[in-house]
Amino acid sequence: MGNQVPDIVIRRLPVYLRALNHLEAQGVAITSSQELADNLGSSAAQIRKDLSHFGEFGKQGTGYHVGYLAKQLRRILHADRTWEVVLVGAGDLGHALIRNQGIARRGFRIVAAFDNDPERVGARVGDIIIQNSKTMRQEIKARRIQVAIIAVPAQAAQGVTDILVDAGVKAILNYSPIAINVPPAIRVQYADPVTLLQRMTYYLS
Amino acid sequence: MGNQVPDIVIRRLPVYLRALNHLEAQGVAITSSQELADNLGSSAAQIRKDLSHFGEFGKQGTGYHVGYLAKQLRRILHADRTWEVVLVGAGDLGHALIRNQGIARRGFRIVAAFDNDPERVGARVGDIIIQNSKTMRQEIKARRIQVAIIAVPAQAAQGVTDILVDAGVKAILNYSPIAINVPPAIRVQYADPVTLLQRMTYYLS
Repeated sequence: MGNQVPDIVIRRLPVYLRALNHLEAQGVAITSSQELADNLGSSAAQIRKDLSHFGEFGKQGTGYHVGYLAKQLRRILHADRTWEVVLVGAGDLGHALIRNQGIARRGFRIVAAFDNDPERVGARVGDIIIQNSKTMRQEIKARRIQVAIIAVPAQAAQGVTDILVDAGVKAILNYSPIAINVPPAIRVQYADPVTLLQRMTYYLS
Repeated sequence: MGNQVPDIVIRRLPVYLRALNHLEAQGVAITSSQELADNLGSSAAQIRKDLSHFGEFGKQGTGYHVGYLAKQLRRILHADRTWEVVLVGAGDLGHALIRNQGIARRGFRIVAAFDNDPERVGARVGDIIIQNSKTMRQEIKARRIQVAIIAVPAQAAQGVTDILVDAGVKAILNYSPIAINVPPAIRVQYADPVTLLQRMTYYLS
């Protein structure tokens, strides 16, 4: 069934999961599509339709078991395991990502970080020693890492991307402010703050 | 015309602008919807349809003038001015955002940053002195700041949001890993890396 679910639905599932995790942490046991929708600025019909791609998770009138639904979403999103992640670019943002304990706790463990600046290579950040970018391809291949985060300047992003893809990376979170070219099978998400901010300033005056 | 353009179209415009900026920096004068589509993993028809909401920007067969189209998109997105931005949360990520010169160069200038940790208040980061969160509401009102970035832990995010909205903020970029509740007129974009990563791990095995 997987491949037939529209990507726009997949994009919303982590948002539902985040809301469910929050409810779970607050000790809420049961919720409804309406309550989730109110929390997320979405609609109950949308949430029910999105979830229906994957089965029956609640009964009409009784709502969803928060813990059960969260567990199912984690399973669907492959978020019920820990992914090893490689980080490229050990500037301020890279440091913040390495030090962000929440990322590791939520299933993404940065296991290697690379930079091409000799002043950064060899430095310890958290549990990580920054490595020379020259060893990146080999290290990713050896560890079979599938997930990467790019936090390098724009002009370096495509070159880094090409190496990552060649080394076997399948999913890239790109913080640099340019679109990167990848083969069709490779997933990219953009986290450039300016792009995100510009989605909102359209509505401001 | 503004309000009638679907939000999904608005969400794509900054991505087009980012690609055009990149072409402009490379000295490319003319592009086509097909070339843009190839760069972005989109379709030429989609790009033409999206742009058609705002007028005629190119002629069949001659393509788009990169500089002109970029300028028009900046105008449409209100990205042809500098927005004053307030940052809440001066941890590692907050520091990285303040120090990110690219954000300011591309139209978003962080003019004030707040934290409730006494050890952080008063510290200088780049050109900014971290201020006590208690003064946040007053400062935002006085400066009429409309754009905010939240980089606080999950449990603090809703409280901060309520203050921001009360102070007149209209657009929030939220790095904390929870959905925040805002009135309908307020825009929110989510930049939590785990949510973005989970949109891709669905496709991995």
